[in-house]
Amino acid sequence: MAKSKKSHRPKARLPKGMRDVDAAEVRASSAMLAAIQSVYELYGFEPLETPAFEYTDALGKFLPDEDRPNEGVFSFQDEDEQWLSLRYDLTAPLARYVAENYDALPKPFRRYQTGPVWRNEKPGPGRFRQFTQFDADTVGTASVAADAEICMMAADCMERLGIPRGDYIIRVNNRKVLDGVLERIGMIPADESFDLQRLTVLRAIDKLDRLGPDAVRRLLGEGRKDESGDFTKGAGLSPEQIAPVMEFVATASDEAADVLGSLALLVGDSETGRAGVEELKTMAGLFKAAGYGSDRVMLDPGVVRGLGYYTGPVYEAELTFETTDEDGEMVRFGSVGGGGRYDGLVERFKGIEVPATGFSIGISRLYSALKVLGKVENRTVSAPVVVLVMDQERLPEYQKMVFDLREAGVRSEMYLGTSGMRAQMKYADRRGAPAVVIQGEDERARGEVTIKDLAEGSRLSEEITDNAEWRSGRPAQVSVGEGDLVTAVKDILARHRT
Amino acid sequence: MAKSKKSHRPKARLPKGMRDVDAAEVRASSAMLAAIQSVYELYGFEPLETPAFEYTDALGKFLPDEDRPNEGVFSFQDEDEQWLSLRYDLTAPLARYVAENYDALPKPFRRYQTGPVWRNEKPGPGRFRQFTQFDADTVGTASVAADAEICMMAADCMERLGIPRGDYIIRVNNRKVLDGVLERIGMIPADESFDLQRLTVLRAIDKLDRLGPDAVRRLLGEGRKDESGDFTKGAGLSPEQIAPVMEFVATASDEAADVLGSLALLVGDSETGRAGVEELKTMAGLFKAAGYGSDRVMLDPGVVRGLGYYTGPVYEAELTFETTDEDGEMVRFGSVGGGGRYDGLVERFKGIEVPATGFSIGISRLYSALKVLGKVENRTVSAPVVVLVMDQERLPEYQKMVFDLREAGVRSEMYLGTSGMRAQMKYADRRGAPAVVIQGEDERARGEVTIKDLAEGSRLSEEITDNAEWRSGRPAQVSVGEGDLVTAVKDILARHRT
Repeated sequence: MAKSKKSHRPKARLPKGMRDVDAAEVRASSAMLAAIQSVYELYGFEPLETPAFEYTDALGKFLPDEDRPNEGVFSFQDEDEQWLSLRYDLTAPLARYVAENYDALPKPFRRYQTGPVWRNEKPGPGRFRQFTQFDADTVGTASVAADAEICMMAADCMERLGIPRGDYIIRVNNRKVLDGVLERIGMIPADESFDLQRLTVLRAIDKLDRLGPDAVRRLLGEGRKDESGDFTKGAGLSPEQIAPVMEFVATASDEAADVLGSLALLVGDSETGRAGVEELKTMAGLFKAAGYGSDRVMLDPGVVRGLGYYTGPVYEAELTFETTDEDGEMVRFGSVGGGGRYDGLVERFKGIEVPATGFSIGISRLYSALKVLGKVENRTVSAPVVVLVMDQERLPEYQKMVFDLREAGVRSEMYLGTSGMRAQMKYADRRGAPAVVIQGEDERARGEVTIKDLAEGSRLSEEITDNAEWRSGRPAQVSVGEGDLVTAVKDILARHRT
Repeated sequence: MAKSKKSHRPKARLPKGMRDVDAAEVRASSAMLAAIQSVYELYGFEPLETPAFEYTDALGKFLPDEDRPNEGVFSFQDEDEQWLSLRYDLTAPLARYVAENYDALPKPFRRYQTGPVWRNEKPGPGRFRQFTQFDADTVGTASVAADAEICMMAADCMERLGIPRGDYIIRVNNRKVLDGVLERIGMIPADESFDLQRLTVLRAIDKLDRLGPDAVRRLLGEGRKDESGDFTKGAGLSPEQIAPVMEFVATASDEAADVLGSLALLVGDSETGRAGVEELKTMAGLFKAAGYGSDRVMLDPGVVRGLGYYTGPVYEAELTFETTDEDGEMVRFGSVGGGGRYDGLVERFKGIEVPATGFSIGISRLYSALKVLGKVENRTVSAPVVVLVMDQERLPEYQKMVFDLREAGVRSEMYLGTSGMRAQMKYADRRGAPAVVIQGEDERARGEVTIKDLAEGSRLSEEITDNAEWRSGRPAQVSVGEGDLVTAVKDILARHRT
């Protein structure tokens, strides 16, 4: 390696499906994470950080493409030849943590965690192999009050992020109700092939929003050929079986009682189905008691989630406002987060059931949404004041000026290159500097510094079209005694803020 | 995989060398990161986030064990069979970023970045395979004013973190001076074997603090057998060659002029050496002009840093207060960060030299240090108030209470299990809850709620030794009308804060 770097030059390029996040997005994401964190904290959740990778067998494999064994995750071997995988979500590592530390945890255990996750999937527009999630989970209680709480918390998060009520909705469903419907159409849970067929049904329904009911009907039946000609195998249901499933996914209504009534009819005397309807009813009661109307949280059997491990309530946070897609068509923004109950994940390790439920917000997707809504502050931090260097010999003096500014809390820089005045002004411009500080030989002789107000200058230059007037006016520039530098800069910055 | 999870149970265990970070450390680390970030921002640095892994050839391999080619990093192949590696620091990815986006960047370019890095090294006590760094780098300027700025910024970070002046020191050296000394003792840069021998010399000196001068002398010469009997091959210098090197590393002094004088003698007429001394002199002038005395930043040729890619100034942040090691012996806490100038890293890609310098703080190590100093706040967030559930049928009513508390900004939880009163009180205790809210059947009939002040209760129970007195007094408990719940809880919390 040490040798080869001399003989050939590596190409500077990002790995496939990866991206660099720029300053504006890093700042906005931090602000978003802080907002969500404050809500999670208010609800009593505690932070936890698990490592980026886990033993592959501990993570398990529950991604939508679990049927393709070598896809979905990035894996490697340690020196003991044990397989390790980068986490693909924050839920599987939590299950490992809970199983490993079960006795020491308060029960129920509420934890939140944020961080990157990695998926070894085909990248596409806006679809990256690394992205940030922010999860909250409650472990150790079977009570659907935990699920209800997380749904309300999800709604609170949306509003704390500045998304107006009416522009988002938390949709709630229950897998048990769907299982009841499947039972009634003759799919039998004990059957070997049930798991896979059920997953195919789930994924078909999960595409309702994106592909519409006709496509879902085909995916529930024999299968579907998409526009590119690719064929996706269906769940193999008969038209008589498909009808109640389609009826099920269309029962959404603002009136919880209506939804519950329709679902009760659809599940008939299926015990699982009735338990699911009962759980949804309890949750609806809790939403109502806390004052969360159907403008914030609503029952919607069209939401099923694609992941295999959910066992009860499932929920999704959706942005309902419209935006323009790549083809210029109006579309709803769609899902920015979701979750549900997964009572079997810890059991994988412990052999005893440890019920749990949780929610995950996709931070990058949410950032795109907030940009569309104009809710991303362009600058949460002001650009730095730049102290120009007119004479390399006098670096220590300029260094002292910038020190004094920083000491007074003014974000500032000394120009660190060796270029001349014009390049330095261009640099200040590029940095978006609100002002530059200049002390040439003449000013120094007079014991003065000059401060150029760049923001004011650019405003004036837009107004003043006459070039002569601009030059003679020398707007937005002030010279003060060296001792008044900090005060004068602060005055200019204060003027910009108002 | 879907099958095997049924047939065998995976063991819940962390991968070797990894750890989970608990709530107290996550909170404290966030506060530390925020403090450091505020200093980096003040100095005009901008955030950037590069992904967790890069193409292996783009990262290069500059870890101390680069001579062992398959060690040091975690690597895996993508579907194109290209090798990818988890980043081992934040500097190599920055070099890739700069090379890839060179034309679009302001020059100089100041960026900061924090995040985990991974090293495939032998884990040990306090030595993990994943840890968090927080870096600031200035790219595109050869001026040592950039290095000086980063050293002063490092000092500011220590103080912003609450480490008192006198308990830390930023030590500064220059690789060119060492190269001058090596030149004078007859080591020739053009020689094929020079790079490796120089690296061995660097690593020998880098161990000065830990092993002392005798061990370093052996490592510079034939080699050294450590206490376990393991032999480390030395740099092969003769006693006549070793003497000036040992003299070099011992020239530290509070007086910059003294250090500069000694170094000038040691490098003699070596051009590289003299350039290095000149750079140190310029930096010393900048420290002085900005008022950073040798109690904050000092010249110390004993600091060389172990990494191969440094080309000029190198610097290290060290905590100088004493603490007790595992064997109960008093030791200095040691290094919590360091960095230096690496003018060749971007050149690897671009073929043109892009000078750069940067600094990295080790967050986990700093956390241990702040704990020793008692500078870690135990709770930056108060524990939640717990609303007990006395009757599962009345969940919606308890849910409403906790909703009202949260609405008023009080961190609170409804108990989500199904256990009885005793278990619920135990839970509240475990959570460190300042208070619990109770409404049993009787209280409900009276339209009242009871608030138990747990913090006050536990204080009183320490004072009151007589059990009867405790029971009869029923201290720290208050019953109020349902409508006054929020006010009463807030009163109790306010009492705790004073």
